[in-house]
Amino acid sequence: MNAKAPWITYRPELKVLDCTIRDGGLINEHMFEDKLVKAVFQTCVDAGVDYMELGYKSSKRLFAKDKFGAWKFCEEDDVRRIVGDGKGNLKLAAMADAGKCDYKTDITTKDKSVFDVIRVACYVHQIPDAVDMIKDAFDKGYEVTCNLMAVSTIQEAELDQALEVVAGTPATTVIVVDSNGSLYSEQVERLVKKYHAAVAPSGKEVGIHAHNNLQLAFANTIEAIIHGANRVDATMAGLGRGAGNCPMELLLGFLRNPKFKQRPVLQLLQDHFLKLRETVEWGPLVPYNISGQLNQHPRAAMACRAGAAKDNYVEFYDKCVADV
Amino acid sequence: MNAKAPWITYRPELKVLDCTIRDGGLINEHMFEDKLVKAVFQTCVDAGVDYMELGYKSSKRLFAKDKFGAWKFCEEDDVRRIVGDGKGNLKLAAMADAGKCDYKTDITTKDKSVFDVIRVACYVHQIPDAVDMIKDAFDKGYEVTCNLMAVSTIQEAELDQALEVVAGTPATTVIVVDSNGSLYSEQVERLVKKYHAAVAPSGKEVGIHAHNNLQLAFANTIEAIIHGANRVDATMAGLGRGAGNCPMELLLGFLRNPKFKQRPVLQLLQDHFLKLRETVEWGPLVPYNISGQLNQHPRAAMACRAGAAKDNYVEFYDKCVADV
Repeated sequence: MNAKAPWITYRPELKVLDCTIRDGGLINEHMFEDKLVKAVFQTCVDAGVDYMELGYKSSKRLFAKDKFGAWKFCEEDDVRRIVGDGKGNLKLAAMADAGKCDYKTDITTKDKSVFDVIRVACYVHQIPDAVDMIKDAFDKGYEVTCNLMAVSTIQEAELDQALEVVAGTPATTVIVVDSNGSLYSEQVERLVKKYHAAVAPSGKEVGIHAHNNLQLAFANTIEAIIHGANRVDATMAGLGRGAGNCPMELLLGFLRNPKFKQRPVLQLLQDHFLKLRETVEWGPLVPYNISGQLNQHPRAAMACRAGAAKDNYVEFYDKCVADV
Repeated sequence: MNAKAPWITYRPELKVLDCTIRDGGLINEHMFEDKLVKAVFQTCVDAGVDYMELGYKSSKRLFAKDKFGAWKFCEEDDVRRIVGDGKGNLKLAAMADAGKCDYKTDITTKDKSVFDVIRVACYVHQIPDAVDMIKDAFDKGYEVTCNLMAVSTIQEAELDQALEVVAGTPATTVIVVDSNGSLYSEQVERLVKKYHAAVAPSGKEVGIHAHNNLQLAFANTIEAIIHGANRVDATMAGLGRGAGNCPMELLLGFLRNPKFKQRPVLQLLQDHFLKLRETVEWGPLVPYNISGQLNQHPRAAMACRAGAAKDNYVEFYDKCVADV
């Protein structure tokens, strides 16, 4: 038991990444209006957020440009149209998915780019590809992270091996990614400590990317922070695929570093996100509770919510339990 | 770090209390239709829930019977109309609020009552009254708990004193009650350990009653369980005043004791709670986020949500910050 109250202090080295437009884009094929993207960008600047992730650097061979919004590809011109010259201290990030990104040609050198960070996302079987991508982005001048997805489905021996490999790359950060939204606090503690032990000796930070299937995204983010994660992801109003993410408005209220401001986020929510809720659904609805607790990918729950039986929880539960 | 995975095991002694109708009644002056109360009751029986709390034993001198629903008073006849003779292993509870209950006359002896448990709720300044109430209910044959409210506002020395006093009563359980919904996990850990140290030597259990202002009700309930709480409160769909409570559907999915069944709860939600949401509002909305993080009573947030400016988060935030 802590004799004092560490929760009223802060760690200056803790940095927040906003991935509202990137993760939220998974709901609507990345088709956000410029007005919203600009508002989120300005809010990040005003709120003291450290990084903003706009979307993916997806292969134009694999994905047709006319079927997705701009944030599926994150072309330099599209980003500059949003940010102008005024990004202040905010660093911009794009995600590069292993197997879905022509990174050699589509990611330019940093000196020609508006981006500061490339976040390389991969499943555990894609680690060799991810290692090449991390090296490529690092050599081009970017800060690089490794987002090892779906950690709740990885065997312990494979995870240990993957962390050892990533520790040898020039990535600055390795992120615990709870893709299924299934982790409980004790699991988060265990993973963050494991990641930390594996990568801290090579000077890397541990991050957390939580999903809200079990109403635990904020709680698990706090848990990760307590156990040493210094890079944390959040989204405005918790926007994100399925159950959504750790809500920025809660996270900034928790963090005690005076540089973070909650008020601009509240302004954004009332000006833009109430309206967004009229056309886009996200949040810890019952089907996401169920898939999260069964450690299943949220795709079945998303399909349920898109269908006529969206509120037939028992039917969905019976199907999921049969699938286990 | 745990080398193993305690989260897949369970403690047989952990008991769940449903307070859907009691806490939910604070939203609508306890005016639930019998149909809903019966459905919640039957769900508790089918789901293996240990206790169900129906409402308050409120003074009829202080509260006019025609201004409130039956569950403000929990008369024996009203309860029997709901439960009939079929309560199985489910124990029934009523809450008795210090200062608002004519307990000497309005609580009959256990042999004449359908209730099994009296939960005595008090603020720290009401401890002497609560002690008398606990003794009265115990002498009448009931299991008795002490729900010490608004713990986040109590000075440490007063809390220590209160726990020492309650330890000397015949209450079986002392409950950590986060009335403002403001506690973070480290605070829950600290309180549960403190309560445990104070009351376990006299054979009492520690309980947790969380509110969901910060989307932490479920997380804080898990945190309390990890640190030894064996009595946990939850409500169907998280129904409860303001931000609501720990959702039963999530809690039962987390607990691994095979006696608990999640499926009847899902059935209840789809049959009754979707409809209830059309007329009653609860959940971790932004004004509750704000009041929770500022450790303020939710009444201002409730007033905000009841008014024309219910979505003016910035105005509400500015008012709350000015009030701190």
